Amino acid sequence: MTGHTHPAGLHTDLYEIRMVESYLRRGMTAPATFSLYIRPTVDRPWFLALGVHRVLEALETFRYDAPELDYLRSVGVEAPTLDWLASFEPSGEVWAVAEGTIVLGHEPILEMTAPLPVAQVLETAVINLIQFPTLVATKAARIALAAAGRPVVDFGFRRAHGLETGVEAALAAHIGGVTATSNLEAGRRYGIPVVGTMAHAFVQAFPTELEAFRAYAEDHPDGTILLVDTYDTVAGVHNAIVVADEMRSAGRHLRGIRIDSGDLDELSRAARKMLDDAGHTDVQIMASGGLSEVSIAVLVERGAPIDAFGVGTDLVVSMDRPAADIAYKLVVYDGRPVAKFSVDKATYPGAKQVFRRTDPSADVLGLRSESLPGEPLLAVVWRDGNVLTAFDLDAAKQRAADAVSALPTAWKVPAYASPTPVPGVSDALRALAGSLRSYPDG
Amino acid sequence: MTGHTHPAGLHTDLYEIRMVESYLRRGMTAPATFSLYIRPTVDRPWFLALGVHRVLEALETFRYDAPELDYLRSVGVEAPTLDWLASFEPSGEVWAVAEGTIVLGHEPILEMTAPLPVAQVLETAVINLIQFPTLVATKAARIALAAAGRPVVDFGFRRAHGLETGVEAALAAHIGGVTATSNLEAGRRYGIPVVGTMAHAFVQAFPTELEAFRAYAEDHPDGTILLVDTYDTVAGVHNAIVVADEMRSAGRHLRGIRIDSGDLDELSRAARKMLDDAGHTDVQIMASGGLSEVSIAVLVERGAPIDAFGVGTDLVVSMDRPAADIAYKLVVYDGRPVAKFSVDKATYPGAKQVFRRTDPSADVLGLRSESLPGEPLLAVVWRDGNVLTAFDLDAAKQRAADAVSALPTAWKVPAYASPTPVPGVSDALRALAGSLRSYPDG
Repeated sequence: MTGHTHPAGLHTDLYEIRMVESYLRRGMTAPATFSLYIRPTVDRPWFLALGVHRVLEALETFRYDAPELDYLRSVGVEAPTLDWLASFEPSGEVWAVAEGTIVLGHEPILEMTAPLPVAQVLETAVINLIQFPTLVATKAARIALAAAGRPVVDFGFRRAHGLETGVEAALAAHIGGVTATSNLEAGRRYGIPVVGTMAHAFVQAFPTELEAFRAYAEDHPDGTILLVDTYDTVAGVHNAIVVADEMRSAGRHLRGIRIDSGDLDELSRAARKMLDDAGHTDVQIMASGGLSEVSIAVLVERGAPIDAFGVGTDLVVSMDRPAADIAYKLVVYDGRPVAKFSVDKATYPGAKQVFRRTDPSADVLGLRSESLPGEPLLAVVWRDGNVLTAFDLDAAKQRAADAVSALPTAWKVPAYASPTPVPGVSDALRALAGSLRSYPDG
Repeated sequence: MTGHTHPAGLHTDLYEIRMVESYLRRGMTAPATFSLYIRPTVDRPWFLALGVHRVLEALETFRYDAPELDYLRSVGVEAPTLDWLASFEPSGEVWAVAEGTIVLGHEPILEMTAPLPVAQVLETAVINLIQFPTLVATKAARIALAAAGRPVVDFGFRRAHGLETGVEAALAAHIGGVTATSNLEAGRRYGIPVVGTMAHAFVQAFPTELEAFRAYAEDHPDGTILLVDTYDTVAGVHNAIVVADEMRSAGRHLRGIRIDSGDLDELSRAARKMLDDAGHTDVQIMASGGLSEVSIAVLVERGAPIDAFGVGTDLVVSMDRPAADIAYKLVVYDGRPVAKFSVDKATYPGAKQVFRRTDPSADVLGLRSESLPGEPLLAVVWRDGNVLTAFDLDAAKQRAADAVSALPTAWKVPAYASPTPVPGVSDALRALAGSLRSYPDG
């Protein structure tokens, strides 16, 4: 689909290459540690970190062949840098949290230690590859919390920013707690359960809605879900009941109806009553159509009789927060801790560790060299070309589920709207930061 | 990078295949016309349509090989449908507006006429491939309007939802009116001008900011832009002036400084005064750091002395509206016009044409069979496997620029916040809609 067969070394910004030119000219190739973390963000007390395995994959493909080097030459990149890029092969060490781990603002998801120009040129791709999976896994977890145990299905393939991105979204959503997807490529590639029945076009292609429902039920007797809102939802439920009666007479069973527009609270209650009155108490009601984390929470809170939710846009673009403010900052160069003091964007110096004691609300951010109470969240996952921890979808999913269920109650509120909590800071880290010039106050 | 070498036929949702099964069982393979349009949307009085060429590319690659068919068999797709998919090759006709055309709500960007199951199974990919380029081209045009003639640079590669999506964003942004990009892959692939100088890490990697500035100016004397906000912006401007003086003594010239944080209005004025007082009136000021269409408009309105803007997130995720409500609706089946009456999602029946008279505010939406005053916007672009109009980046860019400059003044306001205007409707279309059951009122 993409037609992209080039190695990935141009997945970077020009300034990275300009800096590499200077680093190489000046022999500045000592080890540098860059720390990737999310800046504290309103509406997201925590993030489900995901995407480290994509970064490790990228370390395998981030290379430069003749077409890439020719292009760089054409924009004035100098010969020694082109030679260096021609034999580019990342070395060093990546520390990271496990996929599906909950992190707060300032807590590193990943730290890369490599010769300065190596770690520098990877910046753009590393940030890109962590951001999107993390956004969607987090949004999925929040939607699943809002749905309070009811299944949630990913309907977002058409709304994602690109086709590959739609597949990546389905994976991240599943790890974050979404039950199934409509996305066939994601089903094939990752084994995620796939579901789906009919669109409005199906109903319209038949002379009448009832004929469309009968046809579908005959062709797909297992798991039939009839879409009832093409013309008029109440009339659609009547037609669904006719088909449910016919199926029952034939010893079969209508699985459910789906309402995709209108006042879902009111319509689901009306539909539930009609179905129950007709003796179809076991026919489920699925809702979809522009649903979000917040609207699902409201429907659940009001007790709307909805058994499952289909979510598209809000899930796959993380609609209310479609970007995370991810930093990838130099924290050590050649053994010297460094920091940045830009207004509102200050960084802590030094390679770090996060110590988790009970739940994330008691986290302490310290130096990697420290031993403090609690579980250290970051571990080595890659060294000199070798992946030390293979990606395990089921483990990530389980880790995420456990982490979300262990969150403090106040952090499980869907429409939570206060600044991201930040971890406590160890004495050693605070002292190091203070010894430079200034440091960010939680 | 993607490792995706499969044909693209699974870039669809399961329900499309379930519907295809029924269509094939029942011989419902007559021609269907689906119409793709954006539903009226607040904050976007118009959209710059883009992505049709991606759809035409997808028609070439949307196929099923053994792994795809094996997967579909594993989820219960029946044999006749698998046989049909095995020889899938889209036929029919695509009508579309030219890339870079301005459209209003309800105005079709694309209409596909093909055997019903063919047009149905393509739905997910078609919506996906139009949405993202259209969102970003539109946002780019709005940012360029806000910048009022000052150059805007795409800094968004790291913030896009995926690496390929970052490249697609750079292309769409350039067509929409963004001058240059930091994105090297987009530069190589599409010939978009690339720019970039240094990140904060560069400054931090040297013992002092002044040493970093001197090194960069020595290594890259042409087009040097110094990033002045790593530690303290005013002190950074002082250091930049030291380097500008040194460059001038050596017969060279500092191109500019970049401020990436803080109060950009206040800091740009302070920096401008310092530079002017030092005799460097020709050293430019570039601003970046979380800039948006709205914040740029405010800076320009206040007269902040900023010569160029770098924009990331707001541009490449269309931050304030990261999804468009795109419909792909059946409007004709087997010669019979059809419509949908769902609450707030009603559709007009029939294959359509848009007649543009003076500017988009006087558009009339009519039937394709009508001849009305004005320029018809939709034309055949693909027929039975043949692309009839090749994608031309420069033409699309010029078309977009002309269209945006011809917009009514009220539609050029950046923070515009009223419903998307909708076109007038021809008498014939209104009569056809009324003859069905109900129709959407503009």
